[in-house]
Amino acid sequence: MSIIGVGLLGGSIGMAVKSVITDCEIIGYGHREDTLKRAIQVGAIDRGTGDFRSAVEGSDLVILCTPVGLLGEMLRGISGFVKAGAIVTDVGSTKASVVAAAVEILPDGVPFVGSHPMAGSEKRGVEFARADLYRNALCIVTPSDRTPASAVNEVEGFWRLLGMHTCRMSPADHDRALAEASHLPHALAAALVTMQSAEAMALAGKGFLDTTRIAGGDGGLWRDIFIDNAGNMRASIAKLRDQLDAIEKLMEPGKGEELRKWLDAAAAKRRALLQEKLREVTPD
Amino acid sequence: MSIIGVGLLGGSIGMAVKSVITDCEIIGYGHREDTLKRAIQVGAIDRGTGDFRSAVEGSDLVILCTPVGLLGEMLRGISGFVKAGAIVTDVGSTKASVVAAAVEILPDGVPFVGSHPMAGSEKRGVEFARADLYRNALCIVTPSDRTPASAVNEVEGFWRLLGMHTCRMSPADHDRALAEASHLPHALAAALVTMQSAEAMALAGKGFLDTTRIAGGDGGLWRDIFIDNAGNMRASIAKLRDQLDAIEKLMEPGKGEELRKWLDAAAAKRRALLQEKLREVTPD
Repeated sequence: MSIIGVGLLGGSIGMAVKSVITDCEIIGYGHREDTLKRAIQVGAIDRGTGDFRSAVEGSDLVILCTPVGLLGEMLRGISGFVKAGAIVTDVGSTKASVVAAAVEILPDGVPFVGSHPMAGSEKRGVEFARADLYRNALCIVTPSDRTPASAVNEVEGFWRLLGMHTCRMSPADHDRALAEASHLPHALAAALVTMQSAEAMALAGKGFLDTTRIAGGDGGLWRDIFIDNAGNMRASIAKLRDQLDAIEKLMEPGKGEELRKWLDAAAAKRRALLQEKLREVTPD
Repeated sequence: MSIIGVGLLGGSIGMAVKSVITDCEIIGYGHREDTLKRAIQVGAIDRGTGDFRSAVEGSDLVILCTPVGLLGEMLRGISGFVKAGAIVTDVGSTKASVVAAAVEILPDGVPFVGSHPMAGSEKRGVEFARADLYRNALCIVTPSDRTPASAVNEVEGFWRLLGMHTCRMSPADHDRALAEASHLPHALAAALVTMQSAEAMALAGKGFLDTTRIAGGDGGLWRDIFIDNAGNMRASIAKLRDQLDAIEKLMEPGKGEELRKWLDAAAAKRRALLQEKLREVTPD
């Protein structure tokens, strides 16, 4: 199999595969020699190359692990060399554009199945890769109407092999839901940090650090995601603005009881989510 | 000394005082008998009462530990009974209104020194109180122009005795900075949870849970804070809206480089804050 882009996500896939399968050669594609060397050293790949043909020509499974903004370029790079019957997937945080690009770029007989394994870290680079990064996390698989069922099943089986749960969504539904649940929260965390005066920052406590933790992520990765998912981001920002309007109205005199109810409802909704997540990671 | 309101914050003060001073009687005021009993059981207070006179008449230090919305009522309750020369302080998250109310309500010769010990939890109730809740955290002391310096020094000394760092700010500066660094983040966390569709919530991961952790807090406490600090909250919401405008502009075509810079700057600002906080808790 081939891993195109050997950073935190790609490297962790290699290590995870090696922890469960022994007879599979893993080839890493990258354009920086030292990254490929480190990937071999940490046991993420068997060999590295900066050449697309050498990276994919024998592989049954090709996984694109670059930032979202480079996925089109990677698809164009591999399209002439990936063998018929091989399956291509990816790990990007947005799905509509890459699924559409793959249909356009990859030859017939090479199905693309979009994947979004929901695991990661603010850290980047293969030196932070770990075999258990994906264990117990959710992978969203996003087939289109045209994706062969057998390819979808194979890709789901692959992620389950790494210890993931899987679910299926259309690329469009995925991008809409992720804008709300992940991309907007990231933008908000960055906005909250950016707007702080020096006086306010001096008083920031544990709550502020937690709320803004995800703002510590890599700017380039998130830039790609925001731009690729800009339409849904704008819709999510509009929904948030409505909530800000609601808060401002509820701070008016005589609305105390309504404001308390609004806050309690948010707290209860979050508690329910937390319970749900705890159930997911704690099997009966 | 007297603790008016024996919940998480008041109870933790009692336990912390008992861990460093042995010859100080701690009286807890509350209107629920079972709360006072539990407070005695966990070692937070020596005796409890629902009577203001009995709660404060012999005390040198009276600490108001109720939700912000009840502070005026508590000041009126104790004002006829607190002895001349005693000092009154509080633990509220907003300071301008309580400092103004204290000047109005307390008799001459009973100085009020506003305090905001920045410690707490989403949990509430004396059963979660702990002697080390305040250790190594920051307490903001907010004297007015009229607060006697000796009273400010005594109150600062008290918080340091519990292991806190202290700093001074005017009540108005405090409330402005806290709206940005604490109250708006709380409102945003609640807004983020509230706006989520069921589809999006199903995909919420660790990042979302971290970002919204503070939304799990008690609605009544935060209602009081938002209403009391509504003016500064509106100003902070306006600053956030400006950031949302900025993000929307940066998602337009050709702005990728600017968007990356904006995100990287936020990440760098947060990293600097984290370093600062780590330095504070790790003495040389």
